[in-house]
Amino acid sequence: AEWNKVLLGVLTGAVALTIGILLGHFAIDKGSSVPDWVRDASRDVDESIIEKFLAELDTNQLRENLRELTKVPHMATTPGDEATVDFMLKRWQDPNTGLDSAWRENYKVYLSFPNKTSPNKVSVGKTGYLVTWFQNVYKPDQEDPEVVQPYAAYSPAGNVKGKLVYANQGKMSDYELLNRTLDLTGTIAITRYGGEGRSKKYTSFIALNAINAAKFGIVGVLVYTEPYDMNDGLVSESETYPHSWYLPPSGVERGSYNIDFGDLLTPYLAAKDDTYRIPKEDITGIPPIPAQPIGFEDAERLICNVHLDIYNTERLEYSANVMGIIRGSVEPDRYVIYGNHRDSWVHGAIDPSSGTAVMLEITRVLGKMVKEGKWRPRRSIIFGSWGAEEFGLIGSAEYTEEYFSKLSERTVAYINVDISVFANATLRASASPAAQSVIFTASKQVKAPGTTTTVYENWKQYSNRTSPNYGIIPNVGFLTGAGSDYAAFMHYLGITSMDISYFYDRSKTRARIYPAYHTAYDTFDYASTYIDPGFTSHQAVARTAGNVLVRLADSLLLPFNCSDYAESLDQYLGQAVTAFEEKLAAKGISMEPLKKAVQLFRDTAAKLDRLIRDSDLAKETPLKVRQMNDQLMLLDRAFLDPLAFPEQYGFRHVIWASRSSSVPTFPGLADAVEKAESTGLKEDWDQAHKHISIVTQAIAGAAHTLDDVI
Amino acid sequence: AEWNKVLLGVLTGAVALTIGILLGHFAIDKGSSVPDWVRDASRDVDESIIEKFLAELDTNQLRENLRELTKVPHMATTPGDEATVDFMLKRWQDPNTGLDSAWRENYKVYLSFPNKTSPNKVSVGKTGYLVTWFQNVYKPDQEDPEVVQPYAAYSPAGNVKGKLVYANQGKMSDYELLNRTLDLTGTIAITRYGGEGRSKKYTSFIALNAINAAKFGIVGVLVYTEPYDMNDGLVSESETYPHSWYLPPSGVERGSYNIDFGDLLTPYLAAKDDTYRIPKEDITGIPPIPAQPIGFEDAERLICNVHLDIYNTERLEYSANVMGIIRGSVEPDRYVIYGNHRDSWVHGAIDPSSGTAVMLEITRVLGKMVKEGKWRPRRSIIFGSWGAEEFGLIGSAEYTEEYFSKLSERTVAYINVDISVFANATLRASASPAAQSVIFTASKQVKAPGTTTTVYENWKQYSNRTSPNYGIIPNVGFLTGAGSDYAAFMHYLGITSMDISYFYDRSKTRARIYPAYHTAYDTFDYASTYIDPGFTSHQAVARTAGNVLVRLADSLLLPFNCSDYAESLDQYLGQAVTAFEEKLAAKGISMEPLKKAVQLFRDTAAKLDRLIRDSDLAKETPLKVRQMNDQLMLLDRAFLDPLAFPEQYGFRHVIWASRSSSVPTFPGLADAVEKAESTGLKEDWDQAHKHISIVTQAIAGAAHTLDDVI
Repeated sequence: AEWNKVLLGVLTGAVALTIGILLGHFAIDKGSSVPDWVRDASRDVDESIIEKFLAELDTNQLRENLRELTKVPHMATTPGDEATVDFMLKRWQDPNTGLDSAWRENYKVYLSFPNKTSPNKVSVGKTGYLVTWFQNVYKPDQEDPEVVQPYAAYSPAGNVKGKLVYANQGKMSDYELLNRTLDLTGTIAITRYGGEGRSKKYTSFIALNAINAAKFGIVGVLVYTEPYDMNDGLVSESETYPHSWYLPPSGVERGSYNIDFGDLLTPYLAAKDDTYRIPKEDITGIPPIPAQPIGFEDAERLICNVHLDIYNTERLEYSANVMGIIRGSVEPDRYVIYGNHRDSWVHGAIDPSSGTAVMLEITRVLGKMVKEGKWRPRRSIIFGSWGAEEFGLIGSAEYTEEYFSKLSERTVAYINVDISVFANATLRASASPAAQSVIFTASKQVKAPGTTTTVYENWKQYSNRTSPNYGIIPNVGFLTGAGSDYAAFMHYLGITSMDISYFYDRSKTRARIYPAYHTAYDTFDYASTYIDPGFTSHQAVARTAGNVLVRLADSLLLPFNCSDYAESLDQYLGQAVTAFEEKLAAKGISMEPLKKAVQLFRDTAAKLDRLIRDSDLAKETPLKVRQMNDQLMLLDRAFLDPLAFPEQYGFRHVIWASRSSSVPTFPGLADAVEKAESTGLKEDWDQAHKHISIVTQAIAGAAHTLDDVI
Repeated sequence: AEWNKVLLGVLTGAVALTIGILLGHFAIDKGSSVPDWVRDASRDVDESIIEKFLAELDTNQLRENLRELTKVPHMATTPGDEATVDFMLKRWQDPNTGLDSAWRENYKVYLSFPNKTSPNKVSVGKTGYLVTWFQNVYKPDQEDPEVVQPYAAYSPAGNVKGKLVYANQGKMSDYELLNRTLDLTGTIAITRYGGEGRSKKYTSFIALNAINAAKFGIVGVLVYTEPYDMNDGLVSESETYPHSWYLPPSGVERGSYNIDFGDLLTPYLAAKDDTYRIPKEDITGIPPIPAQPIGFEDAERLICNVHLDIYNTERLEYSANVMGIIRGSVEPDRYVIYGNHRDSWVHGAIDPSSGTAVMLEITRVLGKMVKEGKWRPRRSIIFGSWGAEEFGLIGSAEYTEEYFSKLSERTVAYINVDISVFANATLRASASPAAQSVIFTASKQVKAPGTTTTVYENWKQYSNRTSPNYGIIPNVGFLTGAGSDYAAFMHYLGITSMDISYFYDRSKTRARIYPAYHTAYDTFDYASTYIDPGFTSHQAVARTAGNVLVRLADSLLLPFNCSDYAESLDQYLGQAVTAFEEKLAAKGISMEPLKKAVQLFRDTAAKLDRLIRDSDLAKETPLKVRQMNDQLMLLDRAFLDPLAFPEQYGFRHVIWASRSSSVPTFPGLADAVEKAESTGLKEDWDQAHKHISIVTQAIAGAAHTLDDVI
């Protein structure tokens, strides 16, 4: 019993000790326990959230978005545009599926409109009024009184007449050729849409066309849509819309005929009420002579003496961007921006509402997850519905001008989805090379509509290239132009940008773009009949772009790859060496510094890659991860040089700026060598040398940012 | 007994429980204990380290630094300059007191030198050779064969003669006045040093002088040192050095006669071996006609017909920056840069070696603490010993061009200490307003030599202003010019910069600058006899600037104050309203947007201040602190506009760019209004309006960066 009591005492003691240990370990706060933010700071993207998000993106929602957006024409600043502003705000402020906050921002911008009471005219001879502005009505959409008559925005008003001369695409070389055998003075040129201006906007090319024409004394320019370029040669009413996706004979492509982007009266300044505006006479890059687009039906009939009576007027109007945000949880001061323009030329079902429908579906699903408390991104997300893009990327350009510093400092990436579906065949993406890998990751997780494979594999079948690092991969284009709202982000701010859409099978059509582009036939009916009846391609784009968006917002380490950038620089270097090295050497100009800079970039990129690979990110300090993220985020910024292209508005990125040369390489160098070759002048060869130094310094400077941080 | 046993059991149990609790609490690792970096990340500046650091800064070390640095003349790229490169490297690579690493970086730069075998000549009449280039020898220093003959760097070579005309300071207004009564064609102008060019370098003003003169047909320019401006009127040998600090009659101030900064052949590009160089004919901003500085002794004797024979030649030379770093422990990717130029015109005891002596003493003490493992800064520190500053801030400018992106992204501040001691009276500081508070904090901790008070209190007695926020405080100047190597950091990169020195009592002398400036009398003997015999002012500058440096490197939150910035903007706005509002209103130009932008800046600055004040920084997440630090670090960056001043090389900061107008306010606006007033042209008033928009957008844009991060 005594022994029992001792045992009891020992047992009591042991139990008490155990309880004590447990209490001590679990019940008493150590005072310095790990704060919650340590775990939050190291949390990576949640794949189950991504899956849930992708599953929720819905074709019916996409269809209804598009229907709603395209009910009426919504050209920039018109009542139809105002209605879309209200619609966006209603959706983004919805208590169940809206964003953290949403608002509109106005800019007072300079636009050009036709005159309702004096419509523009093209007529032949003394009496015959020929060109009918109102395209044939096939559906109620074309009867809407708000359908704007076809015109060339920023063409000056004027009444001119002259002999009609066919001038191909209106390039300098076209006019020079004609001028050898014909006095062009006093003529009116008829040219076809197409070709590429330096900004890759077709209509920017046409502005250049008119500027070129004026140099030869030409008094007016007509631009028509060539059926061979657009309709695979089909011209009869029975073969075109509403019987197919092809453009009817009376369809006319509208457009803004200007070369630069942003509000034309406030270069580099946000177009607020009191902002200084340059005199209208000082605007460059718009036609100095009247210009007018026409359909191919009319083009065919025109002969001899043509009268051109243009009554366009310019006005200052308030154009709205609609903005919405989801605040980041861990790094609210890092932004992923997703945007598209809202304004169209007429109903704009494909351009741009197919993109807006996708954006709205993405915000609906993300907004719902946020409102339900199920998810909040690591970084902040900004959605932008830009105004007045069709007139020259105005809304997005003004936004970047107004918030230049804040956006430059903090923006991780810009995703642009404008026309989301050109056709049903394959994904198409253009991007800074840094973003290639995240687009690949996302596209591998989405099923390609109408196939049994992924968007990635399907894409690789349609468009691919052989990468030295990866073998055969889908071909991601370069963002060398200013074709949509990514321009200001990529070229002016140096933000890693991408442009994503579904595209057609190049082997099946020669169409320059979907045939109803910028016409009164770009309607919900057209889109839902010929472009994407099941809205599955819209869904595939929503899933791919949305997946990219969530990964950029949530990944602990930004999913950018600097060695992919090095590969693209190598590719450019190879092209430059092949095309220019001998010619430059003959003038005593060496390409060695440029080669060394690319080599340095490759080496430092590989070093940063290794550092990232060798880091256990979940255990790293948040400041170390932030440091690497800053290196990745600011990589594209390092290629900016605001003085490299003084004659190209807003182009500061020395790698992706647009170029006239056909050699796909460093644009400043390519254009300078081509100019020097044509003039043979010492000073022009000097400029080629200067551009080697500019791009060498930019690439070496970018490499320094990838190297050890000190 | 039974009861005892129960008691024993209970006691055993209680003891065991207690032991258990203790064991459980202390002995078992909770698994997820607080990582070390959590504490490191939130550690603030250590005041005891600061005290120790200040105490170690030694006057004897400072004296020996200066003696060593000034043994021989060390004009840029000469053997004397090479010797200082080796000296700096030896010190910064010292195993006991050196930095983490140090190296030299070469640039190949365009310099101008006199000809040893054909010295420049100024002569009178047909025979009389008058001007003697070798100043009187008072000390062995002046006999050194490496003492460069007085000349104007970048003056073209040439042999001209003409009647001598006194043209005051050679301003446009001076020449215009003379030209009313006198035909200046074919004359040689004699002008006095002084005045202010747009970059505030005296010699930049003289370059402008020669450019102005050429417009009137003047064929050559002489520049002399006016005893009234420099010597308080004293002119005799017995009253000047070596009997006082005043300039002897034969002393001649050398200088680089160029307006812009950086290497003249490689604008905006680092001057590497293969960098493209513009043709020499394309250099602007240097004299188009021969120019030559002379002493006042010679100036007095000159009459009538003067011959000017200038044999300067231009050469490409390698100029070195010597760089050294201490790697940061917590945020190695944040840089505090401390720099000074190394090259002089002759021995350069004061300009620049007094600053180099201070820099070396600071690096000795910090290097020692690092080598002993007693300290490592939170952020990285970069020390720069710049080359070829005297020829136009070349070394620092090339450095910022080469590493533009890396430095722009990561640099917290730049501290410049060039001439550290002009005289013994008081501290002088010019800085971005953001840095005012840290300079105040540092100067309050240092005793003013020869007084019983602090550097701060002493400074306030010599130079003060009434601040709306603080009452009477020392006056910190604005960095509106390009007088030393801060120029590229402040104006080209938008990095918060400061320039610190000890200065003289303005009530005791009218001297434009210390009288031996840029002459062969600026020697160790001169400095240690007349400028700072006890080296206590050197020590006070070392302590103040060093204290600022350590605080910038170690403080958890950057010691910048954005409300102080708001106060300066308010001050500028007030000046602009007083001077220009009525005039602008008369032309229909409103200042309201600018007022609103300044108000917005004030409000957002106050908001960020409150946020900082209300944060318990030690408990905040490192990413939150970093976010606020990034807002503070990038504040000055937000004022950059690379297109605001197309005619002023490297000036991009729209608040602090240099101005010609005497109204101390926004420079673009002030200069534009003055021009518009003088021409009366509509287009010039338009430019004033444009500059209101530019500065309004910059201030509002900066305010956006201070606001809530999303």
